[in-house]
Amino acid sequence: MQDDSASPAPRKNKLATEPYKGVRDFYPEDQRVQNYLFDTMRLACERFGYEEYHASVLEPAELYRGKNAENEEIVNEQTYSFTDRGGREVTLRPEMTPTVARLIAAKRREIPFPARWFSIPNVFRYERPQRGRVREHWQLNADLFGVSGVEAEAELIALAAALLQSFGATPADYEVRINSRALVTLVHDEFGLSRDDSRALLRLIDRKNKMDPAEFELELAKIAKENAAGVGALLTATTLETFLASATALTRESDAARDLERLFELLHGLGIENARFDPTLARGFDYYTGIVFEVFDTSPENNRSMFGGGRYDRLLELFGDEKIPAVGFGMGDVTLRDFLESRSLLPAAASAAQLLIATVSAAQIPDAMKLAQRLRGRGARVAVNLTQKKLGDQLKYADRLNIPRVAVLGEDEVRTGQYALKHLASGNETVVSEADLLAAFEQ
Amino acid sequence: MQDDSASPAPRKNKLATEPYKGVRDFYPEDQRVQNYLFDTMRLACERFGYEEYHASVLEPAELYRGKNAENEEIVNEQTYSFTDRGGREVTLRPEMTPTVARLIAAKRREIPFPARWFSIPNVFRYERPQRGRVREHWQLNADLFGVSGVEAEAELIALAAALLQSFGATPADYEVRINSRALVTLVHDEFGLSRDDSRALLRLIDRKNKMDPAEFELELAKIAKENAAGVGALLTATTLETFLASATALTRESDAARDLERLFELLHGLGIENARFDPTLARGFDYYTGIVFEVFDTSPENNRSMFGGGRYDRLLELFGDEKIPAVGFGMGDVTLRDFLESRSLLPAAASAAQLLIATVSAAQIPDAMKLAQRLRGRGARVAVNLTQKKLGDQLKYADRLNIPRVAVLGEDEVRTGQYALKHLASGNETVVSEADLLAAFEQ
Repeated sequence: MQDDSASPAPRKNKLATEPYKGVRDFYPEDQRVQNYLFDTMRLACERFGYEEYHASVLEPAELYRGKNAENEEIVNEQTYSFTDRGGREVTLRPEMTPTVARLIAAKRREIPFPARWFSIPNVFRYERPQRGRVREHWQLNADLFGVSGVEAEAELIALAAALLQSFGATPADYEVRINSRALVTLVHDEFGLSRDDSRALLRLIDRKNKMDPAEFELELAKIAKENAAGVGALLTATTLETFLASATALTRESDAARDLERLFELLHGLGIENARFDPTLARGFDYYTGIVFEVFDTSPENNRSMFGGGRYDRLLELFGDEKIPAVGFGMGDVTLRDFLESRSLLPAAASAAQLLIATVSAAQIPDAMKLAQRLRGRGARVAVNLTQKKLGDQLKYADRLNIPRVAVLGEDEVRTGQYALKHLASGNETVVSEADLLAAFEQ
Repeated sequence: MQDDSASPAPRKNKLATEPYKGVRDFYPEDQRVQNYLFDTMRLACERFGYEEYHASVLEPAELYRGKNAENEEIVNEQTYSFTDRGGREVTLRPEMTPTVARLIAAKRREIPFPARWFSIPNVFRYERPQRGRVREHWQLNADLFGVSGVEAEAELIALAAALLQSFGATPADYEVRINSRALVTLVHDEFGLSRDDSRALLRLIDRKNKMDPAEFELELAKIAKENAAGVGALLTATTLETFLASATALTRESDAARDLERLFELLHGLGIENARFDPTLARGFDYYTGIVFEVFDTSPENNRSMFGGGRYDRLLELFGDEKIPAVGFGMGDVTLRDFLESRSLLPAAASAAQLLIATVSAAQIPDAMKLAQRLRGRGARVAVNLTQKKLGDQLKYADRLNIPRVAVLGEDEVRTGQYALKHLASGNETVVSEADLLAAFEQ
């Protein structure tokens, strides 16, 4: 429907069945997987005492533009924004963090802190759709407000680990990489990098894995100039110890270094041993102020960042409030689904119904509907044949929908109250009374 | 932020904390209710064998405009529509029926019919926000595709009734009103109303309850002219029997009349006795072709339509397909919440966490975190103190969050493994071992 060339006659009058470009339709077999992801996320968050919140996908555009003129361009180019008929500029949220900061700021006098909050919103990015990139995805956001110590980071990393474990992943399947923006800033200060240079360096580090090493060196030399070698040495450290060993005493004895050391201690105490320091980790968002972390897939074919988060203690100041310490992470459904799929961790297909009540002829439909009602009253999930289909086709239908059992109703069954119950996978057939059926589905 | 008058200095630099106009923020106490509504809807639908599907809130605008020029105005005035940077016209879906029709049409060769589908999407309407009217709401949509007999209508009405019962409502709390567009059309044909007159009459009937009776009579006379008395007599019938008694033999012996009679029989067989015929029921959507129904709140203070649906056998033809019979209904969260609230049927406030582990001093936090991890491993929902707060403040915090139990960790407790467990509501305190705690939360 998108090109202007002459289209064949029937299309002129018929509606297209494709979804809008870059978004997904979720057929029952797809939504079942989404629900599995979301339900598992919910359970893991609730086990950590996190409470679910939500908000509209529509937000005032100024929430993303803020006071920063530079942001104007990002908002205009990368988000869905439009002007409503009342002249208000509206944006389809590209991420949840500004929204949760807005909600917390609005009720900061009423909310009991620490606040443990999670949500699983859809978020929109305006990008050219390409392999694996979609314009809309769902993203778990877990955030902890009101804890200034690294216990907060430890809890969120433990939650991320518990989440992956709930999906059946083992610690060998992923790695948690941790860095500290505060530590990076300190090092930059020591090397005399200007604020702009420091920001440029953070951005450069963020792009490091996507760059050619020679190009990275060149860009590093442009920013760090005579200190490029020193900065480069720190960036190649793979443990906190080796990093601090090549740093100055000022850095070594800083709060930022102590926070990182304590965080690794806490994680060790919680049995999380697949976490390591990574001085090249920067994360793409400007609002992070302290520790940042990312969870990487350890699969050699797919050794990439799956999701991450960090501390953003100053974001709430944008709303005119005192500082409220905040740590959070976001985890997208597409990446998670790919990760679970590559490890065969997605559940097998299932059906909403546990039982189909088939009928020998249409004459039994009213009785089939009544029987179904009684079974549902006991908590069973029951579908009923409402068509003129032959019995064989009703059985095929149950099979295609993965409904495991079929009870057959004919004249005799209605009269005697004894039903043939077929188990489709095994082909077994037993004769059961209604009481047996009711008992089988009793909750 | 919306007016142009000079605003006080601080607002210039600070972001507003209000949501976009006409949409709602869902704080944890609000989202808990939403989740209760959605979870109960899901369970009721699954008991009828309905499978969940979903789609993006963004749809091509042509899905709503269709081929009808008249629709152009409705789409432009009542929906959120905008043009994306690729020149595509996009609409935030105002209802789910066109979307589900699109999904079914796209895979009509693969989907096993009958297809029982449900979804709980958010939908947007561009209206002036006013008391009780919001621009975004969530709406259960349950649809059955591929059943041409009124067994489909009976099943959906039974589902609607089971849904309300799941929420604790009794049959006395609501009434199901049923009409048939086919029957109405037949009567109109008999009275010689033109297609335009017939449509005008349907629209008039739809507005009847909002109109002054005299004004209604006047409008009726304009449309039905010399037949206004005859048409009026039919419209005042309160049962199918009295309606058919004043109709001609042609109407009395029509398929439409027989379908209605059979539907009432089926409903009676299913124990649904709070359904009645209402010849004035029309529903606002043009796509209904057969039986339509609405569920009314019977409360004298709030005797209004809560939700409804009907048969729309021709909608899928818009996608160039053979006819696929379809029946469905939609139920909004705001109306449902109001209904449940007015009958005190909403659940009491609860907390995500079942237990808070409090600490006598910050020194016990690492041990508290470890204990929490072990309890979570057994399925318990546990929050941990991560702050320097005094014990009394930690107890107050648990109380404000409705966390029912608090385990206190001090130096002694860490050493002995014996914890004081407080039950906040009763004030009871017991000393328990870790094994006792683990056992208490074992799934």
